[in-house]
Amino acid sequence: MRKITTQDLEAIAIGSTVLGTGGGGDPYIGKLMAQNAIEQFGEVPLLDPEEVPDDTLIVPVAAFGAPVILLEKLFNGKEALAAFEMMEKYLGEKIFATMPAEAGGLNGVIPFAVAAEKNIPIIDADGMGRAYPRLEMVTFTLYDIPASPITQADEKGNRSIYHTINNVWGETMVGSTVIPMGGSCFIACYPMSGKQMKEAAVRNVISKAQKLGLAIGEAKQKGISPLNNLLSAGDGKLIFKGKIIDVNVQTDGRWNKGICRLEGLEGYAGQQMQLDFQNEFLIATSGEKVIASVPDLITVLDLETAEPLTIESLQYGYRLNVIAMPCDEKWKSKAGIALGGPSAFGYDSPYVPI
Amino acid sequence: MRKITTQDLEAIAIGSTVLGTGGGGDPYIGKLMAQNAIEQFGEVPLLDPEEVPDDTLIVPVAAFGAPVILLEKLFNGKEALAAFEMMEKYLGEKIFATMPAEAGGLNGVIPFAVAAEKNIPIIDADGMGRAYPRLEMVTFTLYDIPASPITQADEKGNRSIYHTINNVWGETMVGSTVIPMGGSCFIACYPMSGKQMKEAAVRNVISKAQKLGLAIGEAKQKGISPLNNLLSAGDGKLIFKGKIIDVNVQTDGRWNKGICRLEGLEGYAGQQMQLDFQNEFLIATSGEKVIASVPDLITVLDLETAEPLTIESLQYGYRLNVIAMPCDEKWKSKAGIALGGPSAFGYDSPYVPI
Repeated sequence: MRKITTQDLEAIAIGSTVLGTGGGGDPYIGKLMAQNAIEQFGEVPLLDPEEVPDDTLIVPVAAFGAPVILLEKLFNGKEALAAFEMMEKYLGEKIFATMPAEAGGLNGVIPFAVAAEKNIPIIDADGMGRAYPRLEMVTFTLYDIPASPITQADEKGNRSIYHTINNVWGETMVGSTVIPMGGSCFIACYPMSGKQMKEAAVRNVISKAQKLGLAIGEAKQKGISPLNNLLSAGDGKLIFKGKIIDVNVQTDGRWNKGICRLEGLEGYAGQQMQLDFQNEFLIATSGEKVIASVPDLITVLDLETAEPLTIESLQYGYRLNVIAMPCDEKWKSKAGIALGGPSAFGYDSPYVPI
Repeated sequence: MRKITTQDLEAIAIGSTVLGTGGGGDPYIGKLMAQNAIEQFGEVPLLDPEEVPDDTLIVPVAAFGAPVILLEKLFNGKEALAAFEMMEKYLGEKIFATMPAEAGGLNGVIPFAVAAEKNIPIIDADGMGRAYPRLEMVTFTLYDIPASPITQADEKGNRSIYHTINNVWGETMVGSTVIPMGGSCFIACYPMSGKQMKEAAVRNVISKAQKLGLAIGEAKQKGISPLNNLLSAGDGKLIFKGKIIDVNVQTDGRWNKGICRLEGLEGYAGQQMQLDFQNEFLIATSGEKVIASVPDLITVLDLETAEPLTIESLQYGYRLNVIAMPCDEKWKSKAGIALGGPSAFGYDSPYVPI
């Protein structure tokens, strides 16, 4: 156990954006909310999964919606807590700890606000080790943990509880109501025991986010390459350097979908890369060749500073490093690739680990 | 109090179709379900509202969706009970009695199946005295009774609970999820006390449905005009006799919307009538002149038998009587007309009682 401070959240927010693979929502407002909650209610204990007793109740919390809407639509700051407390009341059992469902972007930091205000620990784990656009795309699904009951809260005061027949239906129900809600809401989901969490979660992903965030920051202080420092911290690989020549985003109320095209720079001059995304980057191709794909992580960084960028901030002319990092081993099983690999998004190329 | 038998349900189902004003769903399957439940679990006590103690819990149940889908999509027969029992468990209080939210069509008979299986009474009242296409369009709304919590069940096993900030948002949430559910589901809603029910409900509407159904049946036995007998039983007025020359129905997953055009017959030869509908008939016009409109009831009957017809059964060439009946007094208030009058459906003509 260690205590997470407001300072720790600076690096965690940056690292969560790296793990967010272009999605997960911009963490800026969420970071401020979490820092504010820590200042008001105290530092948040971060538990290693092994420190969590088996017979405890664990409930992840998350923002839900298209990242571009999460960026633009204000939330009142109490929705995640409302969803969490509705779950606690509905289950009639004290929740021992929370955790991110996805440690990417906004969703990597929001659980800290809830943990601080509820005075409970947060577990150093999530259900992805990255960000994914659909509710059922978590390692919990691979271990047959139901998403239900799912509690949902919006900024207006609407609240729902869903018991769905499977986790895909959880996505369907929350994804249907998020649209009239204005495109974003907050949920608590996948209530599970400490024992289930230890089996099914991706471990130590908050520590990993912090390590990635620190790698970028420290490199600047030391005057070394932030890109190389980050790649080294995350077992990552540089797959392209280029300038955006086209970015096409369509938001249907539930997802940002589109493509981003890059023209190579420096050692990649004369080459092109296409990045397809649905909230998160899904596949990076150069001509016919797949360079990287889900479940591995594809992230874009500013060419100079190596700061990670979210998809909704991308614009023509931006100069980027494109990096890929290996996914958690749980995604490399046959079931994992079926749930979160290229075919889950309609691509017929096989998953080839980077 | 009197006991409702399977035989009583025959007349109630026909009368509910008259009150359904073309919508409410075809009651045939619902009637069979209710009769089957009565055979299995016993006759259902029908209570006059005055017989209900003030401090009891009353929960209406209803089918929700576009009538044409309710007709075509099979339900497993346990959805209404599932929604009802979810409500009872969620509120943690025994429900004293159920009632129709709308006594029109399918929704006039479904509550009998739940009452029989739960061995509880049904109250001789509803929230409309007719059928309406939107969840908030009930007299309960006029008396500030929240629709929430609303429980929802589909035939696949999905279950939801909604707490919405107002009754319009109740419609929005259930109306969003019913679409992926396949266009129909069952709900329990407007949990209220006996005292609230006595104040806000439309009284004795089940008895009225039975009276209307009997009026049609008895006329046939006596060899008198079923149309005249029905009009006399329901304070109704014949507003047109004609043949369908055009019927245009569009189903968007949530509603059947469209128009039905008639060419006059007998005393109406040379005239035309247009009936606009959204699940239910909304407005009857002849040229520029509004002949009848919501909140009054507009119903079409077979020209020969006076059997009421639902909109989804209408076809080119059908020969019809069009009748209008006065709505309950609660709808004639300023708030009632705003909630359920022509302007609530985008018509700028004022409500003129028939």
